[in-house]
Amino acid sequence: MRRKGKRLADVAGLVAHAVGAKSENMSNRITPRSQDFPRWYQDVVQAGDLAENSPVRGCMVIKPHGYSLWENIRDPLDRLFKETGHQNAYFPLFIPLSFMGKEAEHVEGFAKECAVVTHHRLRAAAGGGVEVDPNSGLEEPLVVRPTSETVIGHMYAKWIQSHRDLPVLLNQWANVVRWEMRTRLFLRTAEFLWQEGHTAHATAEEAQEETLRMLDIYERVCREELAVPVLKGPKSKLETFPGADRTYCVEALMQDGKALQMATSHNLGQNFAKAFDIQFADTDGQRKHVWTTSWGLSTRTVGAVVMTHGDDNGLVLPPRIAPIQVVIVPLFKAADETAAVVGEAARIVTELPAAGWRAHLDDREHLKPGPKFYEWERKGVPVRLELGPRDLKEGKVVVVRRDDGSKAPTPAAALGEALPKLMETIQAALYERALAFREAHTTAAKDVDGFAAVLADKGGFVEAVTDGTDETELALKERTKATVRIVLEDGKDLGPCILTGKPGTRRSLFAVAY
Amino acid sequence: MRRKGKRLADVAGLVAHAVGAKSENMSNRITPRSQDFPRWYQDVVQAGDLAENSPVRGCMVIKPHGYSLWENIRDPLDRLFKETGHQNAYFPLFIPLSFMGKEAEHVEGFAKECAVVTHHRLRAAAGGGVEVDPNSGLEEPLVVRPTSETVIGHMYAKWIQSHRDLPVLLNQWANVVRWEMRTRLFLRTAEFLWQEGHTAHATAEEAQEETLRMLDIYERVCREELAVPVLKGPKSKLETFPGADRTYCVEALMQDGKALQMATSHNLGQNFAKAFDIQFADTDGQRKHVWTTSWGLSTRTVGAVVMTHGDDNGLVLPPRIAPIQVVIVPLFKAADETAAVVGEAARIVTELPAAGWRAHLDDREHLKPGPKFYEWERKGVPVRLELGPRDLKEGKVVVVRRDDGSKAPTPAAALGEALPKLMETIQAALYERALAFREAHTTAAKDVDGFAAVLADKGGFVEAVTDGTDETELALKERTKATVRIVLEDGKDLGPCILTGKPGTRRSLFAVAY
Repeated sequence: MRRKGKRLADVAGLVAHAVGAKSENMSNRITPRSQDFPRWYQDVVQAGDLAENSPVRGCMVIKPHGYSLWENIRDPLDRLFKETGHQNAYFPLFIPLSFMGKEAEHVEGFAKECAVVTHHRLRAAAGGGVEVDPNSGLEEPLVVRPTSETVIGHMYAKWIQSHRDLPVLLNQWANVVRWEMRTRLFLRTAEFLWQEGHTAHATAEEAQEETLRMLDIYERVCREELAVPVLKGPKSKLETFPGADRTYCVEALMQDGKALQMATSHNLGQNFAKAFDIQFADTDGQRKHVWTTSWGLSTRTVGAVVMTHGDDNGLVLPPRIAPIQVVIVPLFKAADETAAVVGEAARIVTELPAAGWRAHLDDREHLKPGPKFYEWERKGVPVRLELGPRDLKEGKVVVVRRDDGSKAPTPAAALGEALPKLMETIQAALYERALAFREAHTTAAKDVDGFAAVLADKGGFVEAVTDGTDETELALKERTKATVRIVLEDGKDLGPCILTGKPGTRRSLFAVAY
Repeated sequence: MRRKGKRLADVAGLVAHAVGAKSENMSNRITPRSQDFPRWYQDVVQAGDLAENSPVRGCMVIKPHGYSLWENIRDPLDRLFKETGHQNAYFPLFIPLSFMGKEAEHVEGFAKECAVVTHHRLRAAAGGGVEVDPNSGLEEPLVVRPTSETVIGHMYAKWIQSHRDLPVLLNQWANVVRWEMRTRLFLRTAEFLWQEGHTAHATAEEAQEETLRMLDIYERVCREELAVPVLKGPKSKLETFPGADRTYCVEALMQDGKALQMATSHNLGQNFAKAFDIQFADTDGQRKHVWTTSWGLSTRTVGAVVMTHGDDNGLVLPPRIAPIQVVIVPLFKAADETAAVVGEAARIVTELPAAGWRAHLDDREHLKPGPKFYEWERKGVPVRLELGPRDLKEGKVVVVRRDDGSKAPTPAAALGEALPKLMETIQAALYERALAFREAHTTAAKDVDGFAAVLADKGGFVEAVTDGTDETELALKERTKATVRIVLEDGKDLGPCILTGKPGTRRSLFAVAY
C-alpha cells in the first residue's frame, strides 16, 4: 500500500475544497451503465471532476482531481523506469517535416493525423483582431510530435559511436498530438500526455529483452497500482506500430465488454536505426546498426480506471492512486456540538497524513452531510469516515467503503491499525472484481457465427483460431468490429480457422476495442 | 540538506554510465570564463552533458544530466506549491487564434513570436517524401501556447460562478513555445519547459498577497535549493508582463556581470477577468470580476545555475540539486588489488543511498582515474571519493570537494557523519560565494557617465535614481543596454535623475540582462 502521502493534511483540505466547490453545481444525475455506457462514462468523468473539453477541438483540460490521478499513475511508473536503469530526458515538441518521411511505414501510419506548424508570427488584422502573418512562413514546416522515434533516432545517430555508448535507455514525459476526428475525454484526444521510452541496443536479443521488460513493468503498474488486470502479449501485424518489427501490449477489459490497450512496447528492430543511420563500432571492430525499442503509456489509462472500477454512483478509485484516500465528514446539528465534533475530526485528519494517507477534512458549513457524501462518492474516494456527536462520546468513527458501501463503526484509536488493512482489502477487492468480470467475459469461439454472436450479445474477449492472414483478420473485423488484441499462440494443427476453415495457425484473443 | 535520494545505488550506477559513455568522446577544452564568457557557457553545457541543439531551429534536447537537474529544481518547487494549497492541472497546448487578441497588451507582447498550426494532415509528395496536405487547412489557426493566460481565463469563466468557488489556485507543468530568433541553450530557446501558476481571487488584496507569496517561494527555492542569491521586487512598466498590472521578479547576477530573471510573478488585476468575462457572485449578491495572478519559473534556471556556480573546469552543482551528489572512484593498479578496492568502493556506494545520497560508483575498467576525475568535475558532482589500496589498508577514503578542490582523507567509518555536514558546507559556500560576487558587483551611480562607466567596465547591478519615465529608461537602455531589473523605491526627493537632472522619483537596480 502506498503510504507516503505527498500532501499535508491542511493542503489536502485546501485541495479538496477547490475541487469540491465546483461539484456543488453538478446536481445532474449519472446515467446508469446498463442504459448507456458511453453516456455513463461522460457523466462519471464530469461528476468526478476529472476533465472536460477545452475550446480547442479534441483537446481536453485535465482538472486537478484528474491530474492528481495521473500523477499517481506516473510516479510509480517513473520509479520503476529509474530502478531499471532508465533516465529521463526531453526532446523537441516539433519534428522537421522531412524526418517524418524517413521511415516508410511510420509516415504512412501518422500522416493523416499530424498537426503542422507553418508560420511563426501573428499580425493585426485589417478588420480588428489578429491573423497569421502570411510573411512568416517557415522554410520547412514542423510537425507537432505524434510520437518521437524520428527526432530521437536523429539524436541517437549523433550520440552513439561505440559499443561503450550502449545501451541507451531514455524516457520522456511529454505531450503528443494526433489529430483525431472523433474524440473522447482521456480515451481519444488530439493532445494527450504520456511517457515514451526509447532505447538502443547492440544486439537483437537485448532489444527484445528490453521490449518485454517494459511490458512487464506496465503489467505490474496496471495490476498493483491501478488494480486493472491486464493480459499481455504480441499484436498481429495489422495492429503493429508503424515502423515496428513487433508490438506487444497490455490489454484490459472494460465493463461494457470492450477492450482497451493500456500500454504498448515495440521492438523496432533496425528499422529506425537504418532510416536514421544509427551505427556503432562493435567489439569486433565492425560498424553495425543498433536495435531500438520504444514503449508508452498515456493519460488514456485514467479513462481505463474509470471504466474498470466505476459504478452507477460515479468514480471508484483504487486506494493506491486515489488523490484523496480518506475523507472525514463531521456530522453536527446543535451548534454546541459542532466545535467538539469538528475538533475531533480535525485531530484525526491531522494524524492520517503522518501515517502516510492522503486525507481530507470536509468541514464546509454551508453543506449538509448528504450532499457531502454524494460528492465524495462521485469523486471515488475509497474510504469515508463519519463522525457525529454520539460517535464522539463512544470514541468511534463510522468507516464507509466506497467500493461496496459497507459501514463499520470503528474505535477512533484503532484507525491507525485498521486503515492499512482496509485499504489493501479494497485495492484487492477492486482487482478481483475486475478479474472476475474479465474471466466471465472471455469466451472461446468454435466457429464464425459463434464468434459474432458472442461479440454481439455478451462482448468481452473471444478466443479463436484463424489461419493467421491479414485477410481473415480484416474480414472478421468487417463483420464484428473486433480486432486481434493479443496473439496467444502461433503454431500448427490448432484446428480449423473459424472463418476460412483452413488449417489454423494462430490462436488469438479478439475484442471490440477502444 | 536533501536526504531522500530517489535513485538506488545500482540505478545511479547505470544512469551515470550512460551519461559517462558520451563524455569520453568530449576531449575538447573548456574556454576560460575570462577569455569568452558566452563560449565558456556553451562549453560547460556541452562538457557537462546537460543539453544540446536539436535539428529543429531554436529547440534544445535536454540530456539526462540536464533533465535530472531540472527534476531536482522542479520537485521542491512543486512541493511548496502544494503546501500552499495549489493543485496541478493541465490545459491545452493549442490556443485558438481569436483568444490571443482578447487582451490587447497581451497579444502585442506575444504576436511576433507565435508558432501557428494551420494544417492537420500530410500527404505523399509528387517527387517522393511528404508534404503538408493543402486540403487540410484548419478553419481557425491554433497558436502553440507561449503562455496560457488566455485559454485558462476562458476555462475560469466557466468554472467560477460564486465566491465559494474562490480562490482558484492552479499550476501546470508544461512546455511553451516562443519563436526566438537568437537562441541559447536553456537561456533562450523556442521551446522551453516551465510551470505556470494561474490563480483567481475575490479581492485585489488577495491577488496581491498571492503574487507576493509566490515570489517568496521562488526566492526561497533559488536560495535554498539552487544556492543562487536573488533580489526580489517589482519591474518597471516597460518590463511588465503584457497584460499585467504589476510584474514582480527574482533576479540573479551571473559571473559575467549580467543579470538573469529567475522567475516572475504577475498581478494581472482584472485585465484577463474582463477580457474573458470571469465573474462571480460575491457575498453581497453583486456580480464582480475576479482578480487574477500568474507566475512562472522555467528551464532557464538551469542556465542560471551553470553561470552562477560554474568554473573553468566546468559545472559546479549545489549538492541539493546535483543529479549525482557523490561519486566514488576506486584506484587500482595491480590486478590482485582490484577486487578488494572495488569491493570496498561498492560497499560504500551501497550504503550512501540508504543514507539519502544520490551516489555513483565509477568502476569502468577501460578508463584511468585521471579521465574519470576530469569527467566528474565537468559534470559538477559536488563530492568525489577516491579509494586506493593504501586507503583501503588504512580504512580511509579521500574526500575531494568540487567547489574548492580540497582533499581530506577521512575514515571510511566516519563518512556517514561527515557527508551531511560537508554537503551543507558546500551548499552554503556556493551561496556565499555568489552573494559576495553580487555584492562586489553592485554599484551606486550618481550620474549618467558613472552609470555607463560601471556597466562598461565592471558590469553587475547599478543602483540609480531616475525621474521614473519610460523615456529615461529607454534612453539609458539605448546608451548602455541596461534595463530596470527591479524598482527599489518610488518616492519624492530621491535626488536628481541621473539622466535628466529632474527631481528623482524612483530608485532602481539596473543591469544588462539575459
